[in-house]
Amino acid sequence: MNSLHNIKIVLIETSHSGNIGSAARAMKTMGLTQLRLVSPKQEIDDQAIALSAGAKDVLEQVEIFENFNDAVADCQLVIGTSARHRHLQSTLIEPRACGELTVQRANQGNVGVIFGRERVGLTNEELLKCHYHLNVPTNPEYGSLNLAMAVQLVSYEIRMAWLNLQNKPQNLPLVDYPTTEALEHFFAHTESLYKELGFIKNDAVMLKLRRLYQRAELESTELNLLRGMLTAVEKYKK
Amino acid sequence: MNSLHNIKIVLIETSHSGNIGSAARAMKTMGLTQLRLVSPKQEIDDQAIALSAGAKDVLEQVEIFENFNDAVADCQLVIGTSARHRHLQSTLIEPRACGELTVQRANQGNVGVIFGRERVGLTNEELLKCHYHLNVPTNPEYGSLNLAMAVQLVSYEIRMAWLNLQNKPQNLPLVDYPTTEALEHFFAHTESLYKELGFIKNDAVMLKLRRLYQRAELESTELNLLRGMLTAVEKYKK
Repeated sequence: MNSLHNIKIVLIETSHSGNIGSAARAMKTMGLTQLRLVSPKQEIDDQAIALSAGAKDVLEQVEIFENFNDAVADCQLVIGTSARHRHLQSTLIEPRACGELTVQRANQGNVGVIFGRERVGLTNEELLKCHYHLNVPTNPEYGSLNLAMAVQLVSYEIRMAWLNLQNKPQNLPLVDYPTTEALEHFFAHTESLYKELGFIKNDAVMLKLRRLYQRAELESTELNLLRGMLTAVEKYKK
Repeated sequence: MNSLHNIKIVLIETSHSGNIGSAARAMKTMGLTQLRLVSPKQEIDDQAIALSAGAKDVLEQVEIFENFNDAVADCQLVIGTSARHRHLQSTLIEPRACGELTVQRANQGNVGVIFGRERVGLTNEELLKCHYHLNVPTNPEYGSLNLAMAVQLVSYEIRMAWLNLQNKPQNLPLVDYPTTEALEHFFAHTESLYKELGFIKNDAVMLKLRRLYQRAELESTELNLLRGMLTAVEKYKK
């Protein structure tokens, strides 16, 4: 099954039915179809249907819940949108990371992305029930993002992450990376040999070599090659 | 001056004034303020102002033009939104690349990002006048992105690219990279030495070494170090 199906967009106590319709349209343009509402203040009316445009099917299969807990009960990961609160610092993520995380975890189970009330967002109690808190890095002088616009941005980042995943070749040859121990052997071997050759006279050389090979994320076959080169020099020396 | 000021969002013959207001709000949430209209079908009316919410200032300084040419006359780069036309393949970019390109070029001069008519987009003649063509990778079964939503997505990617640029340390120590010629010298030197040592017997070794050092994007000081190591072995050999 398409993993996008496991992604549930949850709107809490939405005041304007038009926002529900616009959110449904925004979701569908990005391939999302699972919309959940918690105690909406207005029903899905003509205004909602008009604004959903060609996404009426999303509204037709909407799931309505009485409270937050019920709406996320079957979700393994819950991400709530939030302003940039200081006490949430360690769990704040931006839309891009939210898209990646959501798509990744949707392979295993349901993920809920929660959007709060138009004016007051999510309550503190609701925020506490979210694993991560999504913050859109808006203009600090004017951050008034419309609810459906926020749904559009998040749905877009989810689609981008999903497309990236589809485009990755599925059967990448597994690369074998050396253990730290094997790497340290190589560094020690290099150091002793080039000290004997009179080339290494201080710590700077090994620091530079470590930086280079760490940056390159040396693969096992490459490490074997470099070790072979050391041995070739040693053999010659004897 | 803030380079975001050089970014002009241009709406062509917009049918609904509400879309103009929503677009203004979308822009302002992402720090953009320069809106241009080409022959709008409806004036900026109460509906536009209501939907602009706190972005009335963007509407107040809007610039109105009679035609496409006048609206982009002072722009050094023009990007037009478009469906995925085959004949545009070589100039198609996605919103993320659009954001990066726009921000980069806005440091030098004006950049116009053009949004076509609600139903029919840009004409072929207009598309021809754009350097790049922006395509949002929407759901192939339902790509009906509302005009203001498209403005929101593009403005968001512009802001993300702009924030990335702000966050980059301005005084990064300049890294010096070797020329291809210098790299080729190193590879040739390595090959001849390790052939003499009896280690290199076929092409595989040099292919692996090239792959490793290309991936690492060898810096000049690192290249000098590796060349020094070759010379140390050679000296010993003599």
